[in-house]
Amino acid sequence: MADLSTDQIKALVFDVFGTVVDWRGSLIREGVALGEAKGIQVDWPHFADEWRREGYHGGMARIRGGNAPYMSTDGLFRIKLDELLPKYGIGGLSEAEVAHFSRVWRRLTPWPDAVSGLTRLRRKFIIAPLSNGTFATLTVMAKSAGLPWDCIISTELRDTFKPEPEAYRLPGTLLGLDAEQIMLVAAHVNDLRAAQENGLRAAFVPRPLEWGEDGAHEPAPDRSVEVVASDFLDLADKLGA
Amino acid sequence: MADLSTDQIKALVFDVFGTVVDWRGSLIREGVALGEAKGIQVDWPHFADEWRREGYHGGMARIRGGNAPYMSTDGLFRIKLDELLPKYGIGGLSEAEVAHFSRVWRRLTPWPDAVSGLTRLRRKFIIAPLSNGTFATLTVMAKSAGLPWDCIISTELRDTFKPEPEAYRLPGTLLGLDAEQIMLVAAHVNDLRAAQENGLRAAFVPRPLEWGEDGAHEPAPDRSVEVVASDFLDLADKLGA
Repeated sequence: MADLSTDQIKALVFDVFGTVVDWRGSLIREGVALGEAKGIQVDWPHFADEWRREGYHGGMARIRGGNAPYMSTDGLFRIKLDELLPKYGIGGLSEAEVAHFSRVWRRLTPWPDAVSGLTRLRRKFIIAPLSNGTFATLTVMAKSAGLPWDCIISTELRDTFKPEPEAYRLPGTLLGLDAEQIMLVAAHVNDLRAAQENGLRAAFVPRPLEWGEDGAHEPAPDRSVEVVASDFLDLADKLGA
Repeated sequence: MADLSTDQIKALVFDVFGTVVDWRGSLIREGVALGEAKGIQVDWPHFADEWRREGYHGGMARIRGGNAPYMSTDGLFRIKLDELLPKYGIGGLSEAEVAHFSRVWRRLTPWPDAVSGLTRLRRKFIIAPLSNGTFATLTVMAKSAGLPWDCIISTELRDTFKPEPEAYRLPGTLLGLDAEQIMLVAAHVNDLRAAQENGLRAAFVPRPLEWGEDGAHEPAPDRSVEVVASDFLDLADKLGA
């Protein structure tokens, strides 16, 4: 780990899906409730993983690769949902019910340490998401989950996605800070590496349950990551907040 | 006053300088403290009014009229300050001191009802600034003053200023809402009128002391304004929050 000279840090920006909120557990819970209400049996863990992997990651990859025009992640989620509902045999939903389920991404549950950790970190730093979620999704999610952000930073503000360099320049531009005054907190090594390549500092907080008990695990970050913390409370300790 | 059917309102956006915070009183207080520290006598009320009127309003008018390229209001404030310091005989400030004083706009004091009123309103609505202040200024001001915004909306995000139409389209675009689901709260009639012309709802909260005891007063709004409230607590009452 690099020498921990964090005094110059003014802002912490956070990856959200997976790092702050448990998207998979939240989706499964809402799916199970929907299935019970409709009397349908669905493999919700598999449904959640496919929606996330192919709708979100796959959709952004097509756009970043030049194979599709820009669309926000709200749009990507909805298009994939419209494919998945018949594929998983989920019928009989009204348009209002589909629209509501599509916005489950606005109702995700934080990891247990997230709100208390952010509340401590906020006393010392500007804290904001830096997410590919839309501005609206991040705003409504924060209200629903009690995430005490100082402002909302979505890559949608530049019609781009992480890990494009423009995404990592956004917080500095908006907050009037130099890149080295900003630290990205994320559970994903590729996000941290791209942040560092664009001059940001990096803190790794592993979330080993992101893809479930038997799901894929992130590799360990390399030694250039300045802080490794077990959760957001440990991060607050290590950053003196 | 129009029929008060506010059930469909999802978000309240607020003019900030004058409506939420007392920019003039705050500037005068910091000016007096600076003058005492430096042993200089300055007409701070006059200084504050000139900085506001010519630096901010005048600067935006030149840009909107096509007579100057776009510059954020942070830049406009700094350029005007550099003119006003010698004009008012304020010398002997280091660059760091000038930069600090230029950012007094990030340290403005809210009107006495603002924080408690916003805290109530936030329980029912998404609340955000819709201001010509920069994203950085609005974010730091909120932290300093305890303004509990759900997100920060600055016209800087579109390189524009109120009352340009694009400024009033911004909250709907970012929040994924229709114009009629959004209400602007402002102490300024021209801001409310432009909001209504672009489909937003309008609430008037007079701030008769904005320009001081003997300063200019806003005219009364016309009858198309849906809500007139004496302060943010009265606004919360009238909107059922």
